[in-house]
Amino acid sequence: MEDEILTCDVSEGVARLVMNRPGKLNALSDAMLAALTDRLTALGADPDIRVIILAGAGKAFCAGHDLKEMQAGRATLDGGAAYFNDLFARCGALMQLIPSLPQPVIAEVHGIATAAGCQLVATCDMAVAAEGTRFGVNGVNIGLFCSTPMVALTRNIGRKAAFELLTTGQFVDAARATELGLINRAVPHDRLQAETRALAQTIAGKLTAAVRIGKAAFYEQAQMDLAEAYSHTGRVMADNMLLRDTDEGITAFLEKRSPDWA
Amino acid sequence: MEDEILTCDVSEGVARLVMNRPGKLNALSDAMLAALTDRLTALGADPDIRVIILAGAGKAFCAGHDLKEMQAGRATLDGGAAYFNDLFARCGALMQLIPSLPQPVIAEVHGIATAAGCQLVATCDMAVAAEGTRFGVNGVNIGLFCSTPMVALTRNIGRKAAFELLTTGQFVDAARATELGLINRAVPHDRLQAETRALAQTIAGKLTAAVRIGKAAFYEQAQMDLAEAYSHTGRVMADNMLLRDTDEGITAFLEKRSPDWA
Amino acid sequence: MEDEILTCDVSEGVARLVMNRPGKLNALSDAMLAALTDRLTALGADPDIRVIILAGAGKAFCAGHDLKEMQAGRATLDGGAAYFNDLFARCGALMQLIPSLPQPVIAEVHGIATAAGCQLVATCDMAVAAEGTRFGVNGVNIGLFCSTPMVALTRNIGRKAAFELLTTGQFVDAARATELGLINRAVPHDRLQAETRALAQTIAGKLTAAVRIGKAAFYEQAQMDLAEAYSHTGRVMADNMLLRDTDEGITAFLEKRSPDWA
Repeated sequence: MEDEILTCDVSEGVARLVMNRPGKLNALSDAMLAALTDRLTALGADPDIRVIILAGAGKAFCAGHDLKEMQAGRATLDGGAAYFNDLFARCGALMQLIPSLPQPVIAEVHGIATAAGCQLVATCDMAVAAEGTRFGVNGVNIGLFCSTPMVALTRNIGRKAAFELLTTGQFVDAARATELGLINRAVPHDRLQAETRALAQTIAGKLTAAVRIGKAAFYEQAQMDLAEAYSHTGRVMADNMLLRDTDEGITAFLEKRSPDWA
Repeated sequence: MEDEILTCDVSEGVARLVMNRPGKLNALSDAMLAALTDRLTALGADPDIRVIILAGAGKAFCAGHDLKEMQAGRATLDGGAAYFNDLFARCGALMQLIPSLPQPVIAEVHGIATAAGCQLVATCDMAVAAEGTRFGVNGVNIGLFCSTPMVALTRNIGRKAAFELLTTGQFVDAARATELGLINRAVPHDRLQAETRALAQTIAGKLTAAVRIGKAAFYEQAQMDLAEAYSHTGRVMADNMLLRDTDEGITAFLEKRSPDWA
Repeated sequence: MEDEILTCDVSEGVARLVMNRPGKLNALSDAMLAALTDRLTALGADPDIRVIILAGAGKAFCAGHDLKEMQAGRATLDGGAAYFNDLFARCGALMQLIPSLPQPVIAEVHGIATAAGCQLVATCDMAVAAEGTRFGVNGVNIGLFCSTPMVALTRNIGRKAAFELLTTGQFVDAARATELGLINRAVPHDRLQAETRALAQTIAGKLTAAVRIGKAAFYEQAQMDLAEAYSHTGRVMADNMLLRDTDEGITAFLEKRSPDWA
């Protein structure tokens, strides 16, 4: 009996997804990409889920694509061209699914996060890592430049540092990843799960509708010019004000009491 | 007799605006938004004003919108919908007015800067804060996500940190705000006004026409792609060169003397 | 006999260009702009060049435009208008040539890098500087706002810091430039050339085709929205996979041996 490739534990509105192919360092194989896409899509549609944590079983968070499976994909008349285009389209769709989910997604990172594994960290809305975790977009070392991970990476960290990481293939530790803005913070390894859960619970305790409104607007306005961004978010704020629970939240604040949210 | 809601002191080309509703932590009420918009518009049209400082009276810089007034806005047939849309349009217009002014605007921040108050800090061209100042985009705590403050915030600081501040509602101190890039620097509270004025005077001592050209181009090129940005700023530089005072400034530099500016 | 305005030394696939007008602090005169443009264009077309280093002879990396030459340009019927427009167009073209070259370009910076010299640093893909180097976009001090340097600067560092540097004309040292993200790192002056070369050699040792694919995609995707960026880089990754040497690189990695690259 094979273990599930992806386990999911739900507690108090927080879903913790664990990639579970430790022998492959949780590589983003075709099966893992499909499992993540299916499960995240389902969680996204679940009104009871307020925050999602993404973690990895074993020694590493995720070491990127499954290189053996990719090499096997060459055994077609086109040398793998159709397969590779499809693979990166599926991977790119997953990386765009995460910011499009209604719930915040927090990466809980340990061991190593390399190539598409580092892309997952950059793609999640937030990331907490164990001290000692190593991050790299190191595909260049095997002749495969991390062009898709670069999309997420450069939307998190500055240009000079991103260019160096991508072209040298060198790793940075969790302290440097924090300085660069790739992760929110580093914590002792034995505190990683608890600290990540505490962050998730903090957010799960907020008004769910407000968090969902805000996450959607976060990524929408990021791609707009200033006038369009203000026009859009102004309407978002007005709609947010009209929620019954926001009325209650503000009233409770003014009355110095806890809100009675549905 | 009511105190003015906004005081303005002008000295050596520097206008210091002070929001003056300390009992309301200088909340951005309808009246405060109107006063700021009117006064900033007037200062923008004044050729003698070279730099603007924006400060707050009392214990805080600004604590965001006036929640009591907003709640009162619900008492209409549409539950406040038209009022809220108009309110956020007016607030967004103010936040777009500041970068569009010809003069640099420096926030002089102390106490707390929360929600739309933090947005004001992010919106000003520069910000100096007293050590101990606390910054937050904490609307999520009352069920009203800081969607419009996010527009300014995410154009100043990295994505991971911005997402965390917005969804947790937690505060950061002035040291952390400096690291994140939300403010230029933190200074001891008893030095705040002097340090902010010194920065203003440094800029007021430059050739006013050059500073105005530069501020306009700063925000214009930020929204352009690289080719367009170079095409635009190349023309801006050529026009700047043709100013009589720029000719004099360069000549004076080459002759190792002070420029004789009009 | 005049010394060459630009020297070029090639070793192990790394070209080291040295701006060589130390008496003029390597100012970007018409002749220097032309020499840099011609030589970089030629290097870009040379398949044996894998990395380019850009350095300056004498006391400074580069102090910006040649102010004497610019002032002489005023002696035309139009007061220099056509000349200045052409000058900034040529300079802007050089600044766009560097990211468009197939090879990574590393600035090796010492002494001072001011105005268009600081722009060169911001424009290069990476930068290593000697401790003690001073950086500034200080044209405002002579009445000529650094509007074109701003294009490169603001694509490297945060808004608040960029605005302050541009409007105050103040300098930052190499340690602060590192914090801001303007350079990759500061090293002791007597280690500058060796450390820059080591970085260049690290990259020169990667699969050249992968580095070229990656650099092109780096700047292309930076100007795209998320969906377009993933669509584009997904195709780039698939094409990269189809290279014979990438197949070999991955196979060698899986077989725990060094790749046999052409």
